[in-house]
Amino acid sequence: MSTNQAKKSEAKRLHILDTSFTLVLHKGFVGVGLQEILKNCGIPKGSFYHYFESKEAFGCELLQHYINDYQQRLNLLWANNDTAKAKILSYFQKWIEDPEQQESWADRCLIVKLAAEVADLSEDMRLIMDQGTKNLIQRITDLIHQGMEDHSIQTQTNPAAVAQVIYQMWLGAALLSKLHKDKTPLHQAYHATAFMLSGCQSS
Amino acid sequence: MSTNQAKKSEAKRLHILDTSFTLVLHKGFVGVGLQEILKNCGIPKGSFYHYFESKEAFGCELLQHYINDYQQRLNLLWANNDTAKAKILSYFQKWIEDPEQQESWADRCLIVKLAAEVADLSEDMRLIMDQGTKNLIQRITDLIHQGMEDHSIQTQTNPAAVAQVIYQMWLGAALLSKLHKDKTPLHQAYHATAFMLSGCQSS
Repeated sequence: MSTNQAKKSEAKRLHILDTSFTLVLHKGFVGVGLQEILKNCGIPKGSFYHYFESKEAFGCELLQHYINDYQQRLNLLWANNDTAKAKILSYFQKWIEDPEQQESWADRCLIVKLAAEVADLSEDMRLIMDQGTKNLIQRITDLIHQGMEDHSIQTQTNPAAVAQVIYQMWLGAALLSKLHKDKTPLHQAYHATAFMLSGCQSS
Repeated sequence: MSTNQAKKSEAKRLHILDTSFTLVLHKGFVGVGLQEILKNCGIPKGSFYHYFESKEAFGCELLQHYINDYQQRLNLLWANNDTAKAKILSYFQKWIEDPEQQESWADRCLIVKLAAEVADLSEDMRLIMDQGTKNLIQRITDLIHQGMEDHSIQTQTNPAAVAQVIYQMWLGAALLSKLHKDKTPLHQAYHATAFMLSGCQSS
């Protein structure tokens, strides 16, 4: 394959992943048939199998693509001299609202949407989500350590446990927010996060 | 219909709901076809439509049946003279492990399994889960009020907000526990719950 062909092929693969994202985000993984993906991307069936060997392989790449993009968004968001606490809070503020996008990070979260549905269905997809969430919790843990050094964060518990509790509280908040069709759970999570990072002192 | 026939009919309807529960719990709502439900329950297709007018109606009854049963299990669990704090902790202990069943309450939680998948798919099913979770949060709120009276619980925040934050932390913990195939998130949630109910004092 020439370099030009390889570039075109990669662009097509990304096009399929990008255009399928919204479909899967709203209908789930099982709920979206291959036919619907093909129609949505405007590609023939054979072409799909040129890029992905199965629907599960497509699901794995969709998740990995989402996680890579998420990491890059975090890099951008945190590329400043804010305190560690401000960085953590600005991240979760995006879960509530993202002025640059129509939907918030909670609304666009593929982990929230697919975790329960897919964990029992595909071991390969579960492992990608498992690693993605562990990396994210590690990044929050690192920020909590930094916050204890820059004095923006006080905590009586160990940073890894705080990061895990905060992240799972947000996962549940996003789930409840979907059920209630109301952002109150996310706002409650925001207040609880600020409270926990202040050593449980009201600020 | 004679009383006897009505009883038989109700028993059959409950049989379909009970035997389908495990299927849906492990495969999700969309992931379980009507054919699979029929085969699993040993009933003909026409008979299914005698009890439920559609798969969505079946999903609604499955959820309502689960929520009613859950409320009864809570009534039993809390029918004692324990402090309010002990009642809340004994409830969440069941999320980690239930000695009377093979699976914990987190493992058997239909809300954790279906919330994200179904919320965008069926407004009727979403409303049942919405109401079920609101009732549960209200019961935890009531217990926190009782705990402030019996002095087992100290909290600086209002009880409704604490109950909501605790519940969503557990929802997220159950989701993460599924992804990680590990109960650590549930144990962390347990410690965080005990900590929050002690007014953020290490006990």
